[in-house]
Amino acid sequence: MSTLKSWAETAPLLVDTAMGRRKADVVIRNGLWVNVHSGEIIPRTDIAITAGRFAYVGPDASHAIGPDTRVILADGRYLVPGLCDAHMHVESGMVTVTEFARAVIPHGTTSMFIDPHEIANVLGLAGVRLMHDEAMELPINIFVQMPSCVPSAPGLENAGAELGPDDVREAMNWPNIIGLGEMMNFPGVIAGDSKMLAEIAATQNAGRTVGGHYASPDLGLAFHAYAAGGPADDHEGTRREDAIARVRQGMRAMLRLGSAWYDVATQVKAITEDGLDSRNFILCTDDSHSGTLVNDGHMNRVVRHAIAQGLKPITAIQMATLNTAQHFGLERELGSITPGRRADLIITSDLVSLPVEMVVARGRLLAEAGRLTTDVPAFRYPPSAKNTINMKRDLSAEDFSIVAPKGANDVTARVIGVIENQAPTRALDMRLKVRSGLVEADISSGVCQIALVERHRATGGVTNAFVSGFGYNVECAVATTVAHDSHHMIVVGTSRSDMATAANILRKVGGGAVVVSKGDQLALVELPIAGLMSDERAEIVAAKAGALLEAMKSCGCSLNNAYMQHSLLALVVIPELRISDTGLVDVRRFEKVDLFL
Amino acid sequence: MSTLKSWAETAPLLVDTAMGRRKADVVIRNGLWVNVHSGEIIPRTDIAITAGRFAYVGPDASHAIGPDTRVILADGRYLVPGLCDAHMHVESGMVTVTEFARAVIPHGTTSMFIDPHEIANVLGLAGVRLMHDEAMELPINIFVQMPSCVPSAPGLENAGAELGPDDVREAMNWPNIIGLGEMMNFPGVIAGDSKMLAEIAATQNAGRTVGGHYASPDLGLAFHAYAAGGPADDHEGTRREDAIARVRQGMRAMLRLGSAWYDVATQVKAITEDGLDSRNFILCTDDSHSGTLVNDGHMNRVVRHAIAQGLKPITAIQMATLNTAQHFGLERELGSITPGRRADLIITSDLVSLPVEMVVARGRLLAEAGRLTTDVPAFRYPPSAKNTINMKRDLSAEDFSIVAPKGANDVTARVIGVIENQAPTRALDMRLKVRSGLVEADISSGVCQIALVERHRATGGVTNAFVSGFGYNVECAVATTVAHDSHHMIVVGTSRSDMATAANILRKVGGGAVVVSKGDQLALVELPIAGLMSDERAEIVAAKAGALLEAMKSCGCSLNNAYMQHSLLALVVIPELRISDTGLVDVRRFEKVDLFL
Repeated sequence: MSTLKSWAETAPLLVDTAMGRRKADVVIRNGLWVNVHSGEIIPRTDIAITAGRFAYVGPDASHAIGPDTRVILADGRYLVPGLCDAHMHVESGMVTVTEFARAVIPHGTTSMFIDPHEIANVLGLAGVRLMHDEAMELPINIFVQMPSCVPSAPGLENAGAELGPDDVREAMNWPNIIGLGEMMNFPGVIAGDSKMLAEIAATQNAGRTVGGHYASPDLGLAFHAYAAGGPADDHEGTRREDAIARVRQGMRAMLRLGSAWYDVATQVKAITEDGLDSRNFILCTDDSHSGTLVNDGHMNRVVRHAIAQGLKPITAIQMATLNTAQHFGLERELGSITPGRRADLIITSDLVSLPVEMVVARGRLLAEAGRLTTDVPAFRYPPSAKNTINMKRDLSAEDFSIVAPKGANDVTARVIGVIENQAPTRALDMRLKVRSGLVEADISSGVCQIALVERHRATGGVTNAFVSGFGYNVECAVATTVAHDSHHMIVVGTSRSDMATAANILRKVGGGAVVVSKGDQLALVELPIAGLMSDERAEIVAAKAGALLEAMKSCGCSLNNAYMQHSLLALVVIPELRISDTGLVDVRRFEKVDLFL
Repeated sequence: MSTLKSWAETAPLLVDTAMGRRKADVVIRNGLWVNVHSGEIIPRTDIAITAGRFAYVGPDASHAIGPDTRVILADGRYLVPGLCDAHMHVESGMVTVTEFARAVIPHGTTSMFIDPHEIANVLGLAGVRLMHDEAMELPINIFVQMPSCVPSAPGLENAGAELGPDDVREAMNWPNIIGLGEMMNFPGVIAGDSKMLAEIAATQNAGRTVGGHYASPDLGLAFHAYAAGGPADDHEGTRREDAIARVRQGMRAMLRLGSAWYDVATQVKAITEDGLDSRNFILCTDDSHSGTLVNDGHMNRVVRHAIAQGLKPITAIQMATLNTAQHFGLERELGSITPGRRADLIITSDLVSLPVEMVVARGRLLAEAGRLTTDVPAFRYPPSAKNTINMKRDLSAEDFSIVAPKGANDVTARVIGVIENQAPTRALDMRLKVRSGLVEADISSGVCQIALVERHRATGGVTNAFVSGFGYNVECAVATTVAHDSHHMIVVGTSRSDMATAANILRKVGGGAVVVSKGDQLALVELPIAGLMSDERAEIVAAKAGALLEAMKSCGCSLNNAYMQHSLLALVVIPELRISDTGLVDVRRFEKVDLFL
C-alpha cells in the first residue's frame, strides 16, 4: 500500500504502456481471462502491468514487452482476479496480520477486510491502529473495519477498552479504514440506541460501508428495523430465507465458510434454486483457525465449496472478487483484471478444483505452487501490545474456591451447559455437593469449575462458577486468554490447583492457551500479542494448537471444537448462561444472576 | 435536496417507523414489489415512508399507519423504483432544468445525471454553478457532472469560457457534483495530455465517477489506452462489439436512446444474444428534444424500448435504476425500493407498456396519470445568464459577402457536405461562380452560404463559407445560437440580407433559433438563457421548435433532423469539414484550411 500509487497518479504510465510508448514491468501471455464484469471467459488474452496496476488487457501485449519486462507464460491457463475475503477476524487464526497474509497468499487471497474486534477489546483504539498499520505494510490489500461494539455487552462486562462514536469518527480518517465492523448490537439498533446509531452515522457520513451482524432467526419487524438502521451487509444468516431477506432489503448477503461456520451451502440455494440475482451475494470466512489456513486453504476453499454447491464457477468467483469490491466502493480499485486496477491475480489450470499455481499482487509474483516466492518481513509489535496480562499477583488454588452457604451440605447451582456444535449454551440447575464448606465439581456428571480471571485492570477479580459438557475426567485445567469478546482469562478445570497453575503460566508468558494436569504443563500456545496472537508462523501455531486439542482430549474431553467452545463461554451476547468479570449472566434476560438458586 | 436529510440523520425515525413506534408519513399498500436487488417481483408488499425515505418494505405496514399517514392503494400494481437518466444534457431540451424536470417527472424520471456542457461553453464555471444550484432546488434528484472539455477543440475554436483542472478540483467540492462529464477529448487521453489526465485525476481523487466519451470505432490500442486513462463509462458505443469491449475493460456501457440516438437495440444484443452480465449496462438519453419529452416520454420510453428488444422487464428496469445508482456510488441512496433510500417510485399496472400512473419522489406524490400534482416553481436566472449575445453591432448583408480572388470568374471552394442522418460531414470541393467580385451560392446544386458569427466577446468576427445538403430553394436564412460546442451563432442562407436579418433578430432576443425569408420572420424560438435555453414551458418550446422545422421545410429544406444538423456544423471534433470562429477546419487533420483551393 505504502508503495502503490493511485490510479490517478499512475494513469500517464498506464496510458503510455497501453499505447506501447512505455514498456510494461510484467506481461502475462496467453491466458483465459476470467472477466468478472462481463461474465465471460475470454481465450488468448495478454496482460500488461505497470507500476502495480493493469495497463492493458487484450489479445496481444507484445507491444508492451521491452528488455526489462518480466514475461510470464500463462499457457492457456485461467487468469482469475485475486480473491477477496469480505469479512474476517485475523485474531481467529491466532497469528499476526503479517503471518495471516503469509499463510493465505499462496491460496490466492489478495484482499481482506479485517475487523480487529478482538484486539480492540484488549487494547482499544491503539490496538486497532496497530493492526491497521501492520496491514498497510503488506504486499496484499488488507482494509480495516473499525470495531463497532467494544465492549459487546456494556454493563454486563468490562473489556480492556471502550469504543464509541468519537473513536469511529477518528478512525474514519485513517488511510486504511474501509468501514464499520459488524454491528453486533442489533437489539440496540432496533431499539434506536443513540450510541449505536451515532457510530453508524459517523461511518455513513464518511461515505464508508457499515458491516452488519443480525444474529437472530426473526425476520419480522426487528429485522426490517435493523435494515433501516443502516447496516449494509450481514454474514450471520444461516438459512436460505436469511439470505433472501437480506438481499431483498438492499443488504448484501455474505455467505460464510469459516473453520467452524458452514453457511454457504444452505444460503447459496437462494441463487441456484430461487434464481436470485447473484450480484448481491459475497463470500467470506469470518473466522479461520491457523490449522484451516495451513491444511485446507482460505478463500480458494470457499470458492471451491460454492462451486460444488452448483454455482457457475464465474459466479462464485464474482462473489469473491467484483461483488466484494463493489460492496466496499472499491470497484475501480480491485476485484477484476481490467485497466487501472491493482494487478492482483491468480493463474490456475482449472476453475473447479482451483489449484492456485501463481499469485500476483500489485504486479509482483508473490507465490508459486503453494509457496511464497518473496519474503514478507514480520511487523514489530511494541511492548505495550505484548504485556497485556495485567493481573495483581499469581493465583493459588484458594482463588478458585467456591464457598457454600453456611451449613449447607449441598446446593443447587446454576451451571453453564455446553451444547456440542452450537454457540448457545443451556442454563442448567444442578445439585452439587459441599465438602469442607466448598462447593465441589462433579466429574461423574460432567461438571467442572469455570473461572473468569480479570486480566485488563489487575482488579484481582475471579468469577467462579460451574460448567458441564467438556467431559474432563482427570485432575486438570485448561486456560486461555482468548475469551470472547472482552478477552479476560477463562479457566476450566477439575482441580483448583491446576487451575491456578494454568492461570499463572499464561500470566508468565503474556497470554495464550494452556493445558495442565497434576501440575504438569501438557500443551501451551503462547499468544503474547494482546494475549490473542502469536508472533510465530502459522504452521507453528497450527501445530501447537493441534497439540493443545490433543492434550484436552487426553484429559477426557470428547467435545467437538472444544477449545472454541471454551473460548466462547464469556460471550455474554449469546444465550443462555455465560460468565463475565461481573458475575454469571443470564443472556436470555441480559441480567446478572446468582450462582446459587 | 435542500429539505431532504441524510439516511444517517433520518435513521432514528426510520427505525422507529419500522418498529411501529412512530407512524409513517406515507404508506403504500398491496403492490408488486419490483426488487432490483434480488431480481424478483414480490406480491402483496407494503411500503412505509418517513421523512422522504423508505422505512419499511415488507408484507404488512399496517403498524406504521397513524391518523396523519397518507395511505396510497397500489391495488396489486407494480412498485418500480424511480427511473434514472445516467447521462444527459438538459440544454438539448432547450428548457431550464426546472422545466425539464416538470416535463419528465410525469414520465417517472426521479433521478438525472446532467452534464451542463453547453452552458459551460457560454458562461464557464458560473454557468455550471447556476444549473447546479437550480438542480438542488428541485423535488427530484438531479446530480451534475462537471464538464470536462471546454472548449472542445482548443486551438481550433474559442468558446465563451475555458475550463481546466483547477475548475474541476473546485467543482468537486460542490454539494451536488457527482463526477466528471464525458471526457470527449479521447485523442488527448490517449496521447497522455496532461491537462485531460489532471481533470480525470482530480475527479478520481475526489472519489467521483469519470464520464467517458470514446467516439471512435477503433477498438484497438487507442481504446485500451483510453480505458487505462480512467473514464468509467461510455455512451458513444453504437455497435454490439462496442458495448462488449467497454464492459470487458471494466467500464459501464451506457446505451443511449435520445431524440436522435438509437443505440440501445444494437448494443443490448450483448446481453440478449451474447449473454453478458447485465449489471454493467445502463440506459440513458444523452439528448432529448422538448418535443420528445412532450410527445414520447423520457426514461420510460427508453425502458420500454429496451424491453421490446427482448430484455426481461426487471433487467431493463435495473439498467435504469440500481445499475445507475451503483455506477455513481449512490447505491445506498437511491435506485431501489429498500430501507433508507430516497423514497422514489412509480406505480404502474404493466411492466412492458409501462404506463406511469403515479410518481412519488422523496415520499411526495409528484404526478398522477401523466400530470404533475404539485407545483414546481421556476428558477430565476440572473441577468448575467441572459444577455449573452455579445455582438459589436447589427450585421448587414455585406458582412456575409465572400470576396473572390481578384479577377476570378469562378473558384473552387471547400464546401461542407451535410450527410442525412449522420453526424460526420463530407469535405467537398465545388466550382462556384463569381458575380460582381463575390462568390455566389448555387441553389440549383444545393449550395448555400454558411456563416459563423462570433457572439461571446464581440470581436465582430464573421467566418463565411459554403454548405450543401439542406435544399433551401427560396431566398431565406436560418440562424441559431445553439452551435455545438462553443455556441457562437451559425447562420445558413441563400440570401445575404436574410442572413443579416436572422442574425440581428437573435441578437435582439438574446439568442435562439429563427427562420427568415425575404425579410420576414417565419418562425422564432427564443432561448434567452445563455442563448441555449428558453424560460418557457416545455410544451411551448416544443410547439415553437415544431414551427421552426415547418418553416425550414417551407423554404425547401427536405433534410431529416435539419435543425440538429445545422446546430452541429461548428462541432470541430467530428470529421470531415466544419466551421469555427477561427475559420474553416478540416477535422480529419485537426487543422484550419482555406476556403478556396
